[in-house]
Amino acid sequence: MPSQFNRIGLWGRFTDDSVRELAVQLSSHLLQQSVEVFAPRGFPKLAKTRGTELVATEKLGKSIDLLVAIGGDGNLLRATRVIAGCRVPIIGVNRGRLGFLTDVKPDLMLAALDAIRNGDYLAEERLMLKASIRGSRGKARSLNALNDVVLQKADSGRILDFVTTVDGHYVNTHGGDGLIVATATGSTAYALSCGGPIIRPDVAALVMVPICPHTLSDRPLVLPGSSRIQVRVPAGTEGRAQVICDGEELGELDASQTLDIVAADQTVTLLHPTDYNYYELLRSKLNWGRANRSPH
Amino acid sequence: MPSQFNRIGLWGRFTDDSVRELAVQLSSHLLQQSVEVFAPRGFPKLAKTRGTELVATEKLGKSIDLLVAIGGDGNLLRATRVIAGCRVPIIGVNRGRLGFLTDVKPDLMLAALDAIRNGDYLAEERLMLKASIRGSRGKARSLNALNDVVLQKADSGRILDFVTTVDGHYVNTHGGDGLIVATATGSTAYALSCGGPIIRPDVAALVMVPICPHTLSDRPLVLPGSSRIQVRVPAGTEGRAQVICDGEELGELDASQTLDIVAADQTVTLLHPTDYNYYELLRSKLNWGRANRSPH
Amino acid sequence: MPSQFNRIGLWGRFTDDSVRELAVQLSSHLLQQSVEVFAPRGFPKLAKTRGTELVATEKLGKSIDLLVAIGGDGNLLRATRVIAGCRVPIIGVNRGRLGFLTDVKPDLMLAALDAIRNGDYLAEERLMLKASIRGSRGKARSLNALNDVVLQKADSGRILDFVTTVDGHYVNTHGGDGLIVATATGSTAYALSCGGPIIRPDVAALVMVPICPHTLSDRPLVLPGSSRIQVRVPAGTEGRAQVICDGEELGELDASQTLDIVAADQTVTLLHPTDYNYYELLRSKLNWGRANRSPH
Amino acid sequence: MPSQFNRIGLWGRFTDDSVRELAVQLSSHLLQQSVEVFAPRGFPKLAKTRGTELVATEKLGKSIDLLVAIGGDGNLLRATRVIAGCRVPIIGVNRGRLGFLTDVKPDLMLAALDAIRNGDYLAEERLMLKASIRGSRGKARSLNALNDVVLQKADSGRILDFVTTVDGHYVNTHGGDGLIVATATGSTAYALSCGGPIIRPDVAALVMVPICPHTLSDRPLVLPGSSRIQVRVPAGTEGRAQVICDGEELGELDASQTLDIVAADQTVTLLHPTDYNYYELLRSKLNWGRANRSPH
Repeated sequence: MPSQFNRIGLWGRFTDDSVRELAVQLSSHLLQQSVEVFAPRGFPKLAKTRGTELVATEKLGKSIDLLVAIGGDGNLLRATRVIAGCRVPIIGVNRGRLGFLTDVKPDLMLAALDAIRNGDYLAEERLMLKASIRGSRGKARSLNALNDVVLQKADSGRILDFVTTVDGHYVNTHGGDGLIVATATGSTAYALSCGGPIIRPDVAALVMVPICPHTLSDRPLVLPGSSRIQVRVPAGTEGRAQVICDGEELGELDASQTLDIVAADQTVTLLHPTDYNYYELLRSKLNWGRANRSPH
Repeated sequence: MPSQFNRIGLWGRFTDDSVRELAVQLSSHLLQQSVEVFAPRGFPKLAKTRGTELVATEKLGKSIDLLVAIGGDGNLLRATRVIAGCRVPIIGVNRGRLGFLTDVKPDLMLAALDAIRNGDYLAEERLMLKASIRGSRGKARSLNALNDVVLQKADSGRILDFVTTVDGHYVNTHGGDGLIVATATGSTAYALSCGGPIIRPDVAALVMVPICPHTLSDRPLVLPGSSRIQVRVPAGTEGRAQVICDGEELGELDASQTLDIVAADQTVTLLHPTDYNYYELLRSKLNWGRANRSPH
Repeated sequence: MPSQFNRIGLWGRFTDDSVRELAVQLSSHLLQQSVEVFAPRGFPKLAKTRGTELVATEKLGKSIDLLVAIGGDGNLLRATRVIAGCRVPIIGVNRGRLGFLTDVKPDLMLAALDAIRNGDYLAEERLMLKASIRGSRGKARSLNALNDVVLQKADSGRILDFVTTVDGHYVNTHGGDGLIVATATGSTAYALSCGGPIIRPDVAALVMVPICPHTLSDRPLVLPGSSRIQVRVPAGTEGRAQVICDGEELGELDASQTLDIVAADQTVTLLHPTDYNYYELLRSKLNWGRANRSPH
Repeated sequence: MPSQFNRIGLWGRFTDDSVRELAVQLSSHLLQQSVEVFAPRGFPKLAKTRGTELVATEKLGKSIDLLVAIGGDGNLLRATRVIAGCRVPIIGVNRGRLGFLTDVKPDLMLAALDAIRNGDYLAEERLMLKASIRGSRGKARSLNALNDVVLQKADSGRILDFVTTVDGHYVNTHGGDGLIVATATGSTAYALSCGGPIIRPDVAALVMVPICPHTLSDRPLVLPGSSRIQVRVPAGTEGRAQVICDGEELGELDASQTLDIVAADQTVTLLHPTDYNYYELLRSKLNWGRANRSPH
């Protein structure tokens, strides 16, 4: 049976030695199996691996049928934006420290890729968010996010006031450091630090997590994944607000504009080895079960 | 058009004057409209209202096509158990203080019932949990819960150790005061006091909320509503564990048994007036937007 | 018995009508009693009140023996900086909405001032913090804070890494949105939103509260008021860090510098009416006892 | 220089092999140095160590000038009650897993004791609480606690309502699972699981931590160590309340009684090796700095 993945892209911070070494190792391995290997242009050192084709970043997604992101979870988040809209599945290889998204260990990388090319893998479709800032006139700017859309105060030492609606219904007038709208995927990232729940990725839900809310009963709110969340800052608000999608700035939000967050049209397909275990990942990342017990 | 609700049951703590007065008022109103009114036997004072039929509690559900629960949310929770399996919708009338489940105000009760009998209402289907304690041999005991199934230490001053699995996969070994498995409906009850998120009732999800967990990273976990959660206490555990369903004790859990929690076969249908607004209920119950602002 | 307070300063955002009206009312009242009344220059409308002496802001503290801050808690915080080092007690008048620091209601203002001039008051000494940013060479910049010193990320969408020591002992390497070092006074302000405890103002303690810490067990740490807290950002850290004292920016902190936080030499003396009740203030500001009860 | 510690008591669960072995090892070592070694009667296996004197538990404190508690923190808590009022310092040896109170590792036990007998140690005085339940008539029952006094619901599935006062001033009417009053020592035990802050042991403070409070703004409150805290359950309360001191039950609290918590007259003196480091203990017990970083 021929493999379904014969045009494989590599993505990573190749200026990082440990990442580049893994990339070279993987590239050689795949080329020996007559796989076409692609990497984004601009990484001359990687080019030493004969046979790896360097293409413009924006063409990478259209050249390949699988993307291997080597690095941390942040690196994989950037990769998803590069291949957005191309329906290319993605698999994450970490550099030793497990990530929530990068669950293939370096020493198992080659075996994992072989297995995946043989059709032995788990495929998981993950929801993405689309955040847009819409003004009273003119076009909206948009960005997608696999983890979270964050509204945060841009001014130090001030409360940010903002108003939320869901599907047109007024929810709350908040004050605090800001708001996270996270997918289930993002529920174990920034949202967790702000008191949000862990959401298993196959729950079709979003979560709105206020950041350091002034009102102590302003708590995380889990909503259907199909919800349309809108956020505005009231006129006369002193503080400025910024919108960040997976760590990339979308722009500032002023009182004449609306931040609009919905599920994106496209999803991301993550591939995992067949022994992938979500709970094991949680236990490992959150040090579950390792703490000593105090007397009580 | 004839109303679909012509056999209406009343439920409440009728020993409470304010509840009984509302019941009498509602009963008279309905009887005038030729509705058959039923109440559980054993409330002689209510019987003074000529025409109200008193039936055995266990027969109430089969006699009626709508149940009106008058009182607090706890009263409505008890009502759902009485009519379990009868596919009778339920509407909650509070005694002045809004509840999450009892959202009809006393002074709007008659108008609300008239509207509902005219077909003007919102119907909402809410998931129920079914908790069973299964031993190595013998039968399981079971109870349903609309809000939550709570495992808690039965001994004072001790940590309760317990192990959770979901759909057969090991999740975590916990230590603390216990565990709440809540529906979205129950997410605004006890689970909220324990750090759980608010879950909109139409999200098909459960949440596992550890109670005062010893390990600080043991956080609420939102799971698909179709999950099977199992809890065991390890052999050699000193503390005893109790299982409580919506405030009613199911029994103790020992090391030879398994607590099994799944979505129940039957759901509960809640009726609301057409101006029902979930977010308004949240704002009202959680004092959102009312707090003063401190300087920061 | 002559009053001890005969030279009284007024402080507030006099461009705000409600504040100015209170100031004019108080000024007239005091002038009739032959009190000398001072206000910071630059508020011409206030000058219409004949007899009120306008002085340069920096001279205000040295001209007076009591300062009345009219407005919110933030206004009183600014006032403490203006009179820093002058040993002038301060009393806060709010504009209707009680503050933690501004506990005299507008309609009781005149009576409160009369009582205070008669010697009927409670005096409370509150600790201040002194924050300094020290470089490898050159002078340190410093600011005092009655509420809190906040270290926060200046870049969006990034974790801020920082290292804390107390009295020279390494405490922790943190990652998150930043750190609050709060006085007991400030424990009910920003620190409370970030999960810090309420500390009664007469406890001689500081509290270090991590802001949205990445590590979930990184919890608020209460230290003796005499502690020297030092914070550094490690070399190679990508994010920039800002230091804010009571809402005013002290400056940026880079890897060559140290943020040094100690109790300031001077304290602030707050005066209260004799019926001042700290717990009543907590109950009022935190909506204690007002919430409805859910069933559990 | 003669050692100040020549009559040393041993305390532990000697039915536990690992504890007994450490006790026998230590006993032999001390006897060789002509130290008189005492242990509580009733542990025949320990008696095999010739020379160890077995005394009645209640006489142990008066026979010795140092107590070595071998085991976990819970074991040391019990030891403090045995020697209460005897002004005997105590040192804790753990069985491999560091405790907050038992900070001497087994393999360093002999060296630590030698050093301590040579006068090389740190002595730390720790506050104890005294909890009393007082009825309208009759005597009060009392117990001391080094960690915490816990008021908790004794009935499953119910909210416990209770009222707190401090030094005679009404603080709050609470609803929830109960209340912890912890010392700084106890702040890293049960109180931490309930959201309380870490308090460095030399801060002269108590902390009141509500357990799963119904009102979300009912937060931990740090008070001066000299505070008198009183707790009552209102008449008509349905739930029963239990009072637990360091894991030992003091009794039930009913509406005719008052729970009274003050600093005890006696303190506990803990000895530590000279390289004792409180922050290292925190880092070790709380897994600080070990967690992986998610992307945000």
